[in-house]
Amino acid sequence: MKYQVAIIGGGPAGYTAAETAGKAGFSVILFEKQALGGVCLNEGCIPTKTLLYSAKTYDAARHASKYAVTASDISFDLPKIIARKQKVVRKLVLGVKGKLTAHGVVMVNGEAMVIDKNRVQCGEEIYECDNLLLCTGSETFVPPIPGVDTVPYWTHREALENKALPQSLAIIGGGVIGMEFASFFNSLGVQVTVIEMMNEILGGMDKELSALLRNEYAKRGIKFMLGTKVVSVSNYLVNSVETDAPSLSEGERENLPKVQGNGEVQPKMALAQVTYENADGSTESLVAEKLLMSVGRRPVIKGFGLENLNLVKTERGNIFVDEQMQTSVPGVYVCGDLTGFSLLAHTAVREAEVAIHAIVGEKDKMSYRAVPGVVYTNPEIAGVGETEETLEKKGITCRIVKLPMAYSGRFVAENEGVNGICKLLLAEDNTILGAHVLGNPASEIITLAGMAIELRLTATEWKRIIFPHPTVGEIFKEAL
Amino acid sequence: MKYQVAIIGGGPAGYTAAETAGKAGFSVILFEKQALGGVCLNEGCIPTKTLLYSAKTYDAARHASKYAVTASDISFDLPKIIARKQKVVRKLVLGVKGKLTAHGVVMVNGEAMVIDKNRVQCGEEIYECDNLLLCTGSETFVPPIPGVDTVPYWTHREALENKALPQSLAIIGGGVIGMEFASFFNSLGVQVTVIEMMNEILGGMDKELSALLRNEYAKRGIKFMLGTKVVSVSNYLVNSVETDAPSLSEGERENLPKVQGNGEVQPKMALAQVTYENADGSTESLVAEKLLMSVGRRPVIKGFGLENLNLVKTERGNIFVDEQMQTSVPGVYVCGDLTGFSLLAHTAVREAEVAIHAIVGEKDKMSYRAVPGVVYTNPEIAGVGETEETLEKKGITCRIVKLPMAYSGRFVAENEGVNGICKLLLAEDNTILGAHVLGNPASEIITLAGMAIELRLTATEWKRIIFPHPTVGEIFKEAL
Repeated sequence: MKYQVAIIGGGPAGYTAAETAGKAGFSVILFEKQALGGVCLNEGCIPTKTLLYSAKTYDAARHASKYAVTASDISFDLPKIIARKQKVVRKLVLGVKGKLTAHGVVMVNGEAMVIDKNRVQCGEEIYECDNLLLCTGSETFVPPIPGVDTVPYWTHREALENKALPQSLAIIGGGVIGMEFASFFNSLGVQVTVIEMMNEILGGMDKELSALLRNEYAKRGIKFMLGTKVVSVSNYLVNSVETDAPSLSEGERENLPKVQGNGEVQPKMALAQVTYENADGSTESLVAEKLLMSVGRRPVIKGFGLENLNLVKTERGNIFVDEQMQTSVPGVYVCGDLTGFSLLAHTAVREAEVAIHAIVGEKDKMSYRAVPGVVYTNPEIAGVGETEETLEKKGITCRIVKLPMAYSGRFVAENEGVNGICKLLLAEDNTILGAHVLGNPASEIITLAGMAIELRLTATEWKRIIFPHPTVGEIFKEAL
Repeated sequence: MKYQVAIIGGGPAGYTAAETAGKAGFSVILFEKQALGGVCLNEGCIPTKTLLYSAKTYDAARHASKYAVTASDISFDLPKIIARKQKVVRKLVLGVKGKLTAHGVVMVNGEAMVIDKNRVQCGEEIYECDNLLLCTGSETFVPPIPGVDTVPYWTHREALENKALPQSLAIIGGGVIGMEFASFFNSLGVQVTVIEMMNEILGGMDKELSALLRNEYAKRGIKFMLGTKVVSVSNYLVNSVETDAPSLSEGERENLPKVQGNGEVQPKMALAQVTYENADGSTESLVAEKLLMSVGRRPVIKGFGLENLNLVKTERGNIFVDEQMQTSVPGVYVCGDLTGFSLLAHTAVREAEVAIHAIVGEKDKMSYRAVPGVVYTNPEIAGVGETEETLEKKGITCRIVKLPMAYSGRFVAENEGVNGICKLLLAEDNTILGAHVLGNPASEIITLAGMAIELRLTATEWKRIIFPHPTVGEIFKEAL
């Protein structure tokens, strides 16, 4: 049998493509070597949000007196938090599986290898297809820092599975992933240090709002080291496991590095030592119980026969795709992180829709005009469209409207003692170019701005929408 | 001096009109006899949301174990909850005042009386104007139930100021106001009974979702009596204040009705007795410590000289206005609850903008196509556009798409053990006609549907918007 659509990778791009094509009545085969749902569902977006919601609940209970509610003995159970996360992931993976099954998608659990644009091998079998979608996603990028192979660092994966809190955590990379984990572990009482090479956290988000968020977390005890380059990492052995890391489990203690001392082999505690170069060129180091690497992610381009397709690349080294996500080889499409465009699940979802629409003959094209970015810290920060920085680079002048979130009555009612900001960037013709929000629930209301930007509404047109009162979303109407 | 715009009433319609006209450089005078901000800000939308957020915080702490967080001795302090509400209201009233001052609006605190379309009297003074905006709002409608004058019932106003919880509360009227207070007092442990004449609570909202919400609150202990008509109310005197109402404050005890007994005058506890007629015509009664009247609201049409304008009325008895909110008398506009259209603050805000745009010469017209309705229960319920019922009345067929909220990964992550539903109503040409959501934060995401409906997007167009992942708002994209 020849499938009309073959998809490699079962993350947001892959499963959306499969569902969309299946709905359209196309025969679809989907290859996934690990878990359906990909990194996003299994070890990214969803698990982090589940953990962060437990942290938010814990924070809310601790600060309930702001709303005249009191409680004592407030505590959390990390193994249970992790267990709930697994349950949520399982439920959602089953949901995805159910949808694909309902639309007749054939799912193959295995490592697929592209032979040519019409043939994919998995195990012994060779599958034929009319169209091929590559949705292999991305993987954690671990920079070649001297010593990195000798230390037991965490990536997001280990951080999500960890069931015993370290006393201290050094996070290399203050981007979205780094900051979400920083927020989580800070809430739970861990001493967190964020080391960021750039001069601000959350590169790509609005700089002013990012700085405000950083100041808020600095107040809560996170140490930020900006403009700081890590030059090496190493194990820092200390004598007493009990004194220096009482949170270690039995299993972890057994796995501690054995060190020769006083004629016998003894377990010693290995902390992580990070040596860094300050902005002024001086070198210092810090020691933390655990080390989290969150420098970034990069497309997965190896291990599935990409090289057999001879796809044209862009100057920046990414695979070239047109507005329908089609590569230089007709019938071969690339969607999701593999494109290297935005490394966001929702971009992947939209790209997958566009690619399938091209295949099934529905007029559509990809637009990156309004791709929202959200950081699920508490408060959340979210932005969509242009930032002041991207506009400046493009030489586009804009009018900036900035409003404290306190202009929303509901924000005031539900955010005692919390500040926030809403910033809109408007073109000379009054169309909305960008929107940036610091304050809950930025993640949910930013979509309103996304709609306004994608639909090219002017401020006047957007303001004529009736926003329910009182809502936090009204802040946009206030700002217009 | 002759003002270009005179406004009677400083609620959402009045203050929005004043700000909009002031911004446009017009001379504006605003009359408010009570507090700036009107019912909405002082004793409606904002205070209820403040109280409800305390209840939500209390509920969240009590159910924190769902997210692996535990706490003990969870309690609340009602006087403090009320005090915070006052603080929030004060802050927001000051905010409104500040905005009006910034735009040069003259504010007069006093009862205004219309002499004619160009003259308003307040106190001894007569003010002249080119345009007159009537924004007098609405007031609680207390139906002429036999005995209602003899019992000390609450309206929303007393319920918002009450600092000692009753043991039981009977609520006459299961609309939005009734249900928000039912939710609040139920969370705080009061035995609540909701008596509703219609066969479902929340008239005007989606019937199916309303029933689901009702079932949820029934599980939490609220007693609902649907299709039940109250025929009389009376005092029900009981002997022991201590036994029957231990929550009474000293002040309240002193104000109890004095009853002649055993030759001397003694205080007795007056509970509220409600006699009602069931759907089958039988009559029964119930007794509760307090009684809340929330049957509805009606426009304020007396006390400000409306009769001196001789405005044309509609068949239904409301003041006739055109699409610019102008009445039959040129230069006289009506905005907000006084129009009798929707009695919602956000409708009032939009109407005020439209009226001022007409005055300042900016092309605009009022549209009621997408007026969201929100009930801030927990979970929230929200809807916008048509319902199945309104479409049926109009003879319009539609396609209904219904999805459990669990299709949103974020909803699953943040709503352990909670169900919800998203319902979309689509026209034959695929435009969005209505959207209804049960599940948090329905209030914030319903605006997305409001935009889609007002802008007459088709399902295809709406689905092409990039919704950030994971968000609850994505439920719409899933449903499309």
